[in-house]
Amino acid sequence: MLPDTIRQLLERADVRAANDDILATDDQTLAHQIGLTEIPAPPFGEESRGRRMAELLDEAGLANVQQDEVGNVVALRPGAEDREPLVLSAHLDSVFPAGTDVTVRADGDLLRAPGVSDDARGLAALVTVARALSRADITTQIPILFAATVGEEGSGDLRGVRHLFESGGAAADATGFISLDGAGMKYVVTRGLGARRFRVVLRGPGGHSWIDWGAPNPIHALGRAVGALASWPTPTDPALSLTVARWGGGTSVNAIPAEAWAELDFRSESIRHLDDGEERLRAVLDRSVAEENSGVTDRGRQLDVEVTVVGNRPTGVTALDSPLVEAALAATRASGVEPEVTASSTDANLPMSLGIPAITLGAGGSAGDVHTTDEWYRNTNGSMGIQRALQTVLLVSGLG
Amino acid sequence: MLPDTIRQLLERADVRAANDDILATDDQTLAHQIGLTEIPAPPFGEESRGRRMAELLDEAGLANVQQDEVGNVVALRPGAEDREPLVLSAHLDSVFPAGTDVTVRADGDLLRAPGVSDDARGLAALVTVARALSRADITTQIPILFAATVGEEGSGDLRGVRHLFESGGAAADATGFISLDGAGMKYVVTRGLGARRFRVVLRGPGGHSWIDWGAPNPIHALGRAVGALASWPTPTDPALSLTVARWGGGTSVNAIPAEAWAELDFRSESIRHLDDGEERLRAVLDRSVAEENSGVTDRGRQLDVEVTVVGNRPTGVTALDSPLVEAALAATRASGVEPEVTASSTDANLPMSLGIPAITLGAGGSAGDVHTTDEWYRNTNGSMGIQRALQTVLLVSGLG
Repeated sequence: MLPDTIRQLLERADVRAANDDILATDDQTLAHQIGLTEIPAPPFGEESRGRRMAELLDEAGLANVQQDEVGNVVALRPGAEDREPLVLSAHLDSVFPAGTDVTVRADGDLLRAPGVSDDARGLAALVTVARALSRADITTQIPILFAATVGEEGSGDLRGVRHLFESGGAAADATGFISLDGAGMKYVVTRGLGARRFRVVLRGPGGHSWIDWGAPNPIHALGRAVGALASWPTPTDPALSLTVARWGGGTSVNAIPAEAWAELDFRSESIRHLDDGEERLRAVLDRSVAEENSGVTDRGRQLDVEVTVVGNRPTGVTALDSPLVEAALAATRASGVEPEVTASSTDANLPMSLGIPAITLGAGGSAGDVHTTDEWYRNTNGSMGIQRALQTVLLVSGLG
Repeated sequence: MLPDTIRQLLERADVRAANDDILATDDQTLAHQIGLTEIPAPPFGEESRGRRMAELLDEAGLANVQQDEVGNVVALRPGAEDREPLVLSAHLDSVFPAGTDVTVRADGDLLRAPGVSDDARGLAALVTVARALSRADITTQIPILFAATVGEEGSGDLRGVRHLFESGGAAADATGFISLDGAGMKYVVTRGLGARRFRVVLRGPGGHSWIDWGAPNPIHALGRAVGALASWPTPTDPALSLTVARWGGGTSVNAIPAEAWAELDFRSESIRHLDDGEERLRAVLDRSVAEENSGVTDRGRQLDVEVTVVGNRPTGVTALDSPLVEAALAATRASGVEPEVTASSTDANLPMSLGIPAITLGAGGSAGDVHTTDEWYRNTNGSMGIQRALQTVLLVSGLG
């Protein structure tokens, strides 16, 4: 997108009105952000926050706000042309389990609460963009699909955005996809960091630690496998991260355990590196189980191993010269911030993996301690992030 | 002990009367065994069963039955000579946690209940021996200390028997020690299997599995250590068993854990092999933690490791030509059973480790599924086991 174009855009009276409206309603945006944060939205428990989000999008002037089969809240804002829409989205779910205290506390100039930034900020920004377009009476060339998605975090495994892009889904064949995820002004996510997650369970006969000494021990076998995996020189350029994140097993200090399990998280921008990691995992497990079973002739007393893929987040890239990325970079620069492109793991991974141009943007302000109960948000230049999102949308969707 | 001596013993009228009494009161012994089983006695919760045991020993004709500071029930039966006593003991505690259903169920010719054999059988036999001595009006040369001990199992770590043998304790400088532990006729335990137990905790900074990739992972370090330990060719002759029995750590699949822990059980008849095992454990932990910390310059972000010895059961041996072992072997043969000497981990470990002659005997009948909730006892030749205990006691303590 040429600098001239963003300048032309910003000189239009209707766009100026929309940008002014975003600034003027900054308090209202923040009130929505706080209100949404305080409605718990644990993985697979986004229903209540979704209902509130539907109300807010409706009040913001969108017609036909709907909650789909999986819980996504969607509203198609028609364009001048009947074409495939540009999607503007944020995610409903947080990483925090049911029962987490989600009360927002003021702490100096910070707002503190689990999920106050990720992604109550994105959701509030989504409402504010919709309202600004309505009040400035802007009709885009390309329709805009507003979407609040379920299942972006962890075990949700992108189920919300997957549903949107399914054949026949609301966003199938979309022109492009923008996710507003958390705070910030600087980054433009153009590369989707993939993730693959595994649950591994080893089972054996168990027994008494002395009388049955020699029986295969699933903790010993899994320890060997974890040790071998941890010592593996992981691929680089792009990096593969490999984390054994949880493990457990055993019931009593004087017994050979009957079961040992572990949960693993692999991440990379390279699908090949994720494949290499999975291959290595399966190989070290097979080898360490075989070692532990060596000398155990009774098949019924041998260890067996079960590997389940519990998460699979695809990788993808949006070209730096795509109109969507150029629009986001130009809109960022127009705010006086020098943008930086980066990789992350967000809803945008899914359309990227399908070849649909997709990016993720922060929705202004700043944040920290994200994914912890100390998560905080600071509203410095908050409106500027929402204006950047608006400009990016308008540059891609076009105006009459 | 010469065969002539056991023959002479069994020909005495008073000893015959005592043996006849054991046989005649077999039903009463079994009733006590069932009653004691049904009083829960989890580790560190032996109080109620101890009180009942004190009543039973009192009814059996012992004077001065006392419950000591740690919960042991003791009664000194004076001898003709004022010498250090021979100890005859059984243990009060079971392995089963509070809340376990300890109701005894008849199952054909089996009695089923947690702890019905280990060690309600030994406790009931202790009462029956005391009663038989009283009713046959037998005075031994050496005094006999009847003792029902706390803390024989697992985490009890022999605290009851330790207390008896402490300087100034009821059994300090005892002439010998016999533990009646569970069922059986054949085995004479002359070697104490030692055990050492550890809890290992590794702690680090934790973090996000991608953003903090490279931070030290305590599960990776502990996995390496477990793998190295499991692959170590353990000493043999006598064997060292090495069991990583439980482990845990981590809170979320997409986070580097802040903590990993494991519990380990080492057993051997050789204290040197237990020492070797502990040395190896500490070495593999140090090495694997150092590997994981390599490249982490900020000391505050390095892993640290804590090793706690949570159990230490000493080893020991009673010489095969000691009067105590010879007495037990002769008494077993006099019952028509060919004895076998063996190693086990019982209260006798402690006096063995102090150089005091000590053995453990089964108290007749047979048993199975011990240490499980399916534990059973069958009373075939039950009285014979108690008579064996009586003969062993009388051969060592002597008669006027």
